[in-house]
Amino acid sequence: MQHPFDRATVLTPMDDGGVAGRTDAAYMNMVGPFGGITAAAMLNAVMQHPDCLGEPVAFTVNFAAPIAAGPYRIVALPARTNRSTQHWTLTLDQDADVKATATAVCARRHDTWSSTESRMPQVAPAADVAPTRLAAMAPPWCDQYETRFLQGQLADGVVTDDARGAVTMMWVRDTPPRPLDLLALAALCDAFAPRIMVRRARRVAAGTVSLTIYFHATPADLAAQADRPLLGVARASTFSRGYHDQRAELWSDNGALLATTHQVVYFKD
Amino acid sequence: MQHPFDRATVLTPMDDGGVAGRTDAAYMNMVGPFGGITAAAMLNAVMQHPDCLGEPVAFTVNFAAPIAAGPYRIVALPARTNRSTQHWTLTLDQDADVKATATAVCARRHDTWSSTESRMPQVAPAADVAPTRLAAMAPPWCDQYETRFLQGQLADGVVTDDARGAVTMMWVRDTPPRPLDLLALAALCDAFAPRIMVRRARRVAAGTVSLTIYFHATPADLAAQADRPLLGVARASTFSRGYHDQRAELWSDNGALLATTHQVVYFKD
Repeated sequence: MQHPFDRATVLTPMDDGGVAGRTDAAYMNMVGPFGGITAAAMLNAVMQHPDCLGEPVAFTVNFAAPIAAGPYRIVALPARTNRSTQHWTLTLDQDADVKATATAVCARRHDTWSSTESRMPQVAPAADVAPTRLAAMAPPWCDQYETRFLQGQLADGVVTDDARGAVTMMWVRDTPPRPLDLLALAALCDAFAPRIMVRRARRVAAGTVSLTIYFHATPADLAAQADRPLLGVARASTFSRGYHDQRAELWSDNGALLATTHQVVYFKD
Repeated sequence: MQHPFDRATVLTPMDDGGVAGRTDAAYMNMVGPFGGITAAAMLNAVMQHPDCLGEPVAFTVNFAAPIAAGPYRIVALPARTNRSTQHWTLTLDQDADVKATATAVCARRHDTWSSTESRMPQVAPAADVAPTRLAAMAPPWCDQYETRFLQGQLADGVVTDDARGAVTMMWVRDTPPRPLDLLALAALCDAFAPRIMVRRARRVAAGTVSLTIYFHATPADLAAQADRPLLGVARASTFSRGYHDQRAELWSDNGALLATTHQVVYFKD
C-alpha cells in the first residue's frame, strides 16, 4: 500500500530530460497544492537524478503561480558540480508556463567538530498532548498531518494562545505515520499555518512566495526518529507592506535539530 | 568621485542579453571576491533590468565556485511576471563556467497592517563604541566596512566575548560612508565573519555556499538611515558535518528591521 506522500511526490522520467509529476487530491490547499508537497517533489527531482552528488544541504523554492490540478514537469539541471558540492537549478512548469523555480546545494558531508547552539524548547511529550481536531473548512493537505499544539494553534480560525510573536509550537508528523526522510522533512518545513493568521487570530488571504530549507539531519537522526512526531517551532520577525517572514526549527523528539527553515509569505490584510 | 561600492557593482549591458561586471580589488576576500559584493552585483542585475517590477522581497544567492579576478557575466531572466510579483533566475559565469546562481522575488508593495515582532537589542549607540582596528591579515573587503563590536568580535583571530551561541552584535556601515540603498543592504547581510570562527575563537577555513535575504526596509527607512551605522545581530543554530547556518538581523539605528538574512557556510574543522 503506497503512502499518500509517496504517491504525491513520485516522478517519472520524460524524453526531454525533465520528470513528470502530478498534483494529488490529498495534498491540495485552498488554491493549488500545499507548498510543502511541491517543495518535496522538486527536491525529489534532484535526489533521484542520476547525477546527484551527496545529500541536500540548502534548498530554496519560489512559488511563482498556482499549480493547476493535473500533470506538471520539473526540470532539474546541475549548474555546477565540484569535488564535494553540487549546485542545482530547477523549474516546475505546466505546458511551458513556469509555476515554481528552485535552487539546491548538495554535498558529500563528513564528520567534523559539531555543536548545536539552539536549545530545544522544554515541552510536554507528544503523547501527553491531544491531537488537533481539524476544522471542517481546513483544506485537504491538513488531513495529511497529525498536529498536537503546545502554542499558537490555528483551528476554526481562532488562536488559542497569546498571538504576540506569532509563535507556534507543535508536534507534527505525517498521517498515516511514515518513517521520516528528507523529502518528508522538506514538506514538514512548510506545515505551519501562515504567521499572519496566528498573529491576527483569524483567517487572512496569504501564501508562501519563497521558502528556504537548511538540512541538518544525519541519516542516523532520520532513522532514529522513524515515524514519531517532530517538534516544530515557528515565529515571525516582521509583518510589513503585504509580506511577512517566518523562521522555524524542526526537532527530533530526542533533541536533534533536523532542519531550520525560512519563508516569505504574501498576505492581504 | 565614485564610491568603491558603486564601482564594484556597476554592470554594462552585453549584446547577448547579459550584463558584464568585473571583480574589484577593494572587495576581494581570501579566495575570490567578498560574497556580499557578488550578491549586490547580482541583485543589481535584477534591479537595473528594464523589465524589473517593483522592489526585491526575497533573494537567494548560491556561491558555486570562486570567481577569478577579472570580468564576469550575469544573466538575469524573469521566469514569471504576475500582476504584482515577479520571479527571477540568475547565473553568474566566467567564460561559460558557472560561478554563482540566484533567484529573486520582486513585488510592488503597498501599505498593510504591520507589526515588527522581533525586538532590537538594547545596546550602546555607535558613537559610544570604538571602531575596530583591523588585523593586518584581514582581507581587503574588511577595509570597506567600519565595524564597532558589542559582542562576538573577530579580530586577530581572537574572539573577545563568550563564544557560546556564536553571537555577534556590531554597528556596521560602508566606509567611506555611503547612503544606504538595497544593494548596500544586501552586501551588509554578508558582512559578518563566519560563525565558526566566532564559536571556535580562531581562524577556520570557511565559505558561504548559500545566502538568502528578506528585504523589509521601506524607501523611507533607507532615506532615514542615510549613511549612519546599522546594528547587525548574527547567530548560528548548529554546526554539523562541515556546514553551519547563520541567521541575522539588520536594524536601522532608529529601530526599523531592515532585513533578515540566513546563510549556510562550509567549514573545515
